[in-house]
Amino acid sequence: MTQPDVETTHRRVALPQRESRNRHPGGVLWFTGLSGAGKSTLAFALEECLFNEGYQVYVLDGDNLRGGLSSDLRFTHIDRTENIRRAGQVAALFADAGLICIAAFISPYRSDRAIASTNAKRFHEIYIRADLTTCESRDPKGLYRLARAGEIENFTGIDDVYEAPDNPAFVVDTTELTIEQSLASLSGFVAAHFSLRASDG
Amino acid sequence: MTQPDVETTHRRVALPQRESRNRHPGGVLWFTGLSGAGKSTLAFALEECLFNEGYQVYVLDGDNLRGGLSSDLRFTHIDRTENIRRAGQVAALFADAGLICIAAFISPYRSDRAIASTNAKRFHEIYIRADLTTCESRDPKGLYRLARAGEIENFTGIDDVYEAPDNPAFVVDTTELTIEQSLASLSGFVAAHFSLRASDG
Repeated sequence: MTQPDVETTHRRVALPQRESRNRHPGGVLWFTGLSGAGKSTLAFALEECLFNEGYQVYVLDGDNLRGGLSSDLRFTHIDRTENIRRAGQVAALFADAGLICIAAFISPYRSDRAIASTNAKRFHEIYIRADLTTCESRDPKGLYRLARAGEIENFTGIDDVYEAPDNPAFVVDTTELTIEQSLASLSGFVAAHFSLRASDG
Repeated sequence: MTQPDVETTHRRVALPQRESRNRHPGGVLWFTGLSGAGKSTLAFALEECLFNEGYQVYVLDGDNLRGGLSSDLRFTHIDRTENIRRAGQVAALFADAGLICIAAFISPYRSDRAIASTNAKRFHEIYIRADLTTCESRDPKGLYRLARAGEIENFTGIDDVYEAPDNPAFVVDTTELTIEQSLASLSGFVAAHFSLRASDG
């Protein structure tokens, strides 16, 4: 092999080619909100809905990252920030690959979300909103109970802050809406921002 | 919204559905070899080739990870291990999303590659082989010169070890083959392990 040309190490498949193949733009839908607000539930439901419509879509959430890429991190402020930094980088890679990446993370700190937003070209911060009382009454994983009992620390909403978005691209209030209504609302947002071109075939 | 059912937080789009949509399995092609062996050159060339054939494919390489996800890491043994751990996790996420992820990393330590291989269901270690003299004569980024001058440390092949694969799934010897021959050889490997079904349309 002749000496590799440094130029050839640049990517040869451009994003527009991927988007043309997939018939929609790539990007990131960043779901932020309290534990129990419904982020993961809605992320996976939206993923199914979009997949069935023909989108290339993939969910990253706290559970699949914490068990793998971020398995070395804990829940201190500095480790949460690092977790969100990594999540933002991975979401941007998926967007660069032409997919819609739904990233569902509590991501309690405004500055962390701001950093994540700078990585991807099409990044939309979506606030999955529910008040603390509602989230705590749902307590799907029993974590609020443990946090109140002092058995887990740095729990967002209990002994750690949640900084609500100042200017989110979209808000879904799951205290007021059913899952079906929330999903319909999110689908409408996606249709408006990532429209799917008709298939040629 | 009623209390989220923990069950609903599991992924609702299964990998076989993605693979059926994409017409090929997802997986990881892990390129290992010395700096200058041709890993990134061949990875991006193979990506283009597979994309044009209809594959969903994405390259992760040292440069795009080191500038983002692993920007906090240096080139010490422990940081290299962490870099490869993260790369392996991200490659596995892409495979889980139904893509073929071509991961091009020197990944000098056998044990690090072994860990990366456990994350993804279809993982193929591909040794991009060239002897040190050849790689050093190519020196596409001028790094060997800097390493010999002592201006960079822990450089694989100079003052850090490269542990060649014991039992790689495939070997491409870029000392003997041209880029075109290497690429043809890799394409054959992919066709055998990730065959593309004919389009219905």
